Amino acid sequence: MKKYRAGLFGLGVVGSGVFQTLSNNKDFPISIEKIAVKNPGKKRNIEVDASKIYTDASELLEDESLEIIIELINDPHEAFQIVSQALRNGKKVVTANKKMISLYHQELLQLSSETDGTLLYEAAVCGSIPVIRLLDQQFGADEINKVTTIANGTCNYILTQMSAKGWSYTKALQEAQNLGFAELDPYSDVSGEDTRFKLSIIILHSFGVHIKADDIPMVGIEHIDDSAIEFASENKVKIKLVGQAIQKNGSLSASVIPQFVEASEDIFFVDEEYNAVQIDAKYANRQFFKGKGAGSFPTSSAVVSNLSDIIYNRGYQLPASLTTFKKIEPTSDYYYVAGNEEVLHHLNVEEILVSETNYKIVKASLGTLLETSKEGAALSIINLPESLLKKLANTHAII
Amino acid sequence: MKKYRAGLFGLGVVGSGVFQTLSNNKDFPISIEKIAVKNPGKKRNIEVDASKIYTDASELLEDESLEIIIELINDPHEAFQIVSQALRNGKKVVTANKKMISLYHQELLQLSSETDGTLLYEAAVCGSIPVIRLLDQQFGADEINKVTTIANGTCNYILTQMSAKGWSYTKALQEAQNLGFAELDPYSDVSGEDTRFKLSIIILHSFGVHIKADDIPMVGIEHIDDSAIEFASENKVKIKLVGQAIQKNGSLSASVIPQFVEASEDIFFVDEEYNAVQIDAKYANRQFFKGKGAGSFPTSSAVVSNLSDIIYNRGYQLPASLTTFKKIEPTSDYYYVAGNEEVLHHLNVEEILVSETNYKIVKASLGTLLETSKEGAALSIINLPESLLKKLANTHAII
Repeated sequence: MKKYRAGLFGLGVVGSGVFQTLSNNKDFPISIEKIAVKNPGKKRNIEVDASKIYTDASELLEDESLEIIIELINDPHEAFQIVSQALRNGKKVVTANKKMISLYHQELLQLSSETDGTLLYEAAVCGSIPVIRLLDQQFGADEINKVTTIANGTCNYILTQMSAKGWSYTKALQEAQNLGFAELDPYSDVSGEDTRFKLSIIILHSFGVHIKADDIPMVGIEHIDDSAIEFASENKVKIKLVGQAIQKNGSLSASVIPQFVEASEDIFFVDEEYNAVQIDAKYANRQFFKGKGAGSFPTSSAVVSNLSDIIYNRGYQLPASLTTFKKIEPTSDYYYVAGNEEVLHHLNVEEILVSETNYKIVKASLGTLLETSKEGAALSIINLPESLLKKLANTHAII
Repeated sequence: MKKYRAGLFGLGVVGSGVFQTLSNNKDFPISIEKIAVKNPGKKRNIEVDASKIYTDASELLEDESLEIIIELINDPHEAFQIVSQALRNGKKVVTANKKMISLYHQELLQLSSETDGTLLYEAAVCGSIPVIRLLDQQFGADEINKVTTIANGTCNYILTQMSAKGWSYTKALQEAQNLGFAELDPYSDVSGEDTRFKLSIIILHSFGVHIKADDIPMVGIEHIDDSAIEFASENKVKIKLVGQAIQKNGSLSASVIPQFVEASEDIFFVDEEYNAVQIDAKYANRQFFKGKGAGSFPTSSAVVSNLSDIIYNRGYQLPASLTTFKKIEPTSDYYYVAGNEEVLHHLNVEEILVSETNYKIVKASLGTLLETSKEGAALSIINLPESLLKKLANTHAII
């Protein structure tokens, strides 16, 4: 079998995992020959031959003996420069950078098409779960109606601890940071931004349309407090940060928002740092996939599966140009809203269904609620399925 | 895009689904031009142009304008003749025939290799769940330690009704037959044979070894009675027919047997006619996939995904020759055993842990228990996880 020489950018959590996985598999026909890092003197917990380490990107990008570039750095703009140059130089590229793919997918698609290049990014969405592979290969003649995902392991870990151990949001976040599940600056995870990047890539592969992540309405988990957890527990539901895209009669709605999830849903059982993707399609019906969304080896297993794709000449089947959607607006829905009394009093909603001192259940458009949130009020907004609302009618005075 | 002409064998549940799916997708570059059926006069609930219908296989197999053969008949031996001839004639073949693949996979692999042919069979295992695709593509540089599957929708439907509605096995089977989930002769489903065929294909793609389905120890669901269902309910577990293959230090054990499944397991939540596959791998860790295992459209969606593979030139990456395993012996384990008192009294086991009038919980080798079963006694044998045994110690006198 043909042997390939590869260059690796980044030797962090995922980079180290990929390097170790390939080192442990001597039969695998791809070997990492050069590694570009920012700080070659940094202490690492893996052993790498110093002669493989470079700080100059061009040492890898201009080396014609390297057919494959594996890009695993953090900065999306720098990553875009590296990946673009690699594609222009005729290299096949594997990346795990969801932010880069989400921000630049139009440009990258065009560049791949112009250079007839290969660009694969299974690890960018839901770590080890082969979601891109499946969307790309399995639903070619099917019609996807809905995709639902728990795509951020950090948020899911935090919400699981809050619910199972009664920890506050702050304590659960701290614990996640101690365990390495959350970064020192947790903004991207807890705000929903990370999920939104991933959802935009899922939308690209599910519906073949380009959506700016920024245009997807988003609510994070930062304002979820004990009373929301208590409400969930009383009603035998769990709170999960859910990314969802729904296609109906050719139009698309999408959102990233905490949801009360009932035990009748498969995602109810996705706990700790696990991720999941549920696909509802016309012919295949419902498909549910669950796996580790983070961690060195689970994520690197997705990178390595893309390396196998290169060996067997499998690429993604996306059109070179995509329809661009201007704005994604979820239709009005039911929400649990908590915050200070003053703010709750001035909510701009269509209907108030339950009104307690510390929360309200309202029918509203998410856009309007987010406006209120922007005005400086720390609102906790949690999506509430209609089926749960019906159950609440037995215990609450529905107005 | 290049257009392909295909020939279809069989117009039953799956065949009709494939024909309809392709008819509804005019953009899909594969069209069914000829259909071979046994009985052209048979009343069908889909409309097919009579000029497309043939009864002579060679009309399809010898037609050089047909590049693709889709084989969806029942008889595995006849299917093998069709598929072999199609491969010899240079055609690309898609089949859903698990029995044929399981019985003939050595011959088919060799033939595919000799003719440089394409043979794809995603629909043969777990209907719509893309299990072969994943095993083939995602775990190339990973090491699979265990595969667990609920692969028979009929059994799962029957067990779900027995547990949820208190129905007897006979009544649940009858209902499954009325709904079209079970055939008039349910032997292959309820005996575990169907699961065993599928498990042998899963083993082929997980571990690269050839195992005769006959060599996998098997227990069906026919003897599961109300008291076993009651035992499950009392202990908050469910009974599922589970196919499992475990690799440990290079040796393999496999079995198909009803198991008491605890709520901590993902397969606990696989009910009704759903199927599931759980893969435990060294790097990817645990992956869980759930989807419809039967039904016209879900199964045909897997067939159509293979047609997409042909368009994009994706094949399976199996070696042409495989290691053949002689015998698969599960190591000794814990079992719930029920039957008449006389038989229970003479069980050949290593240890008896619980001894009630109508059942015993024993430590034994499955092979030995199956010997007792063969001697004419209708034994109900259900695998019992060690963790459940520990819980039982609180409520039962463990001997």
